[in-house]
Amino acid sequence: MEYIFSVLVENKPGVLARISQLFSARGYNITSLTVGETDDPTISRMTIVVDGDEKIMDQVKKQLNKLIDVVKVVDLTSLPQIERELLLIKVNADKKMRSEIIEIAEIFRAKIVDVSDSDVTLEATGQKDKIDALIKLLKGYKIKELARTGRSCLPRSE
Amino acid sequence: MEYIFSVLVENKPGVLARISQLFSARGYNITSLTVGETDDPTISRMTIVVDGDEKIMDQVKKQLNKLIDVVKVVDLTSLPQIERELLLIKVNADKKMRSEIIEIAEIFRAKIVDVSDSDVTLEATGQKDKIDALIKLLKGYKIKELARTGRSCLPRSE
Repeated sequence: MEYIFSVLVENKPGVLARISQLFSARGYNITSLTVGETDDPTISRMTIVVDGDEKIMDQVKKQLNKLIDVVKVVDLTSLPQIERELLLIKVNADKKMRSEIIEIAEIFRAKIVDVSDSDVTLEATGQKDKIDALIKLLKGYKIKELARTGRSCLPRSE
Repeated sequence: MEYIFSVLVENKPGVLARISQLFSARGYNITSLTVGETDDPTISRMTIVVDGDEKIMDQVKKQLNKLIDVVKVVDLTSLPQIERELLLIKVNADKKMRSEIIEIAEIFRAKIVDVSDSDVTLEATGQKDKIDALIKLLKGYKIKELARTGRSCLPRSE
């Protein structure tokens, strides 16, 4: 099962290493991780997406709470949430192909952020499924390179 | 000085722990980190932003290249690049305040992704400076919570 943890941590060296160690020591692969400062620069928020079973994830949650640099752990797995991810993707495209790519960009509400004679770079945001679908569609045009931020989440308001 | 590394790694447990360990062992704080799968699901791309001096960053780069799970390291620091970050931010707003927040959202081309009686949640993308400016402006309305993905980068085409 997929678990999503939103973790507030002290913004200082070594915290990320200790947290990622906690997961890898149990053989769990973090499938998505984002780290960014909050409005308080001494505190960062990590969003961790990881596959695992319930029993061990409960243990991981307890261990996270015990770490001195961890301020707060919220398990977003079963809460209503807003989830977004950002994709930058550079696709092979000569002048002829370009209009097809632009059409796809419009459908996915992606922005064109760079163009050259041989390629187009798009920026897209959305939930994981949407980003996956866009990448799948663009595979037909040969992808030069892509970078995904991983998923950021906030709980929905009641 | 701020360094940006784009690192292609094997998508498996322990890789993130080894890489973050490499930085923290030298006392360097990773200020931004994003990890996401590429179009090849066995390979992930990490974008690491870190402050440090040139001499030690050269060493870190060499060490990264030596790690068995690291496929490729690109130092984007001095290359022309496209850099984007995603922000989710929930701001206090009653019905009266809401229109002010919506106005700010329009200026920053942010999307409104959730609304309740007492708050509004926005999604914004852009370079770090733009995101910082938006957060600064919204501080006047009391920020409930925010999540930043950290920065994703691709080199610009020539």
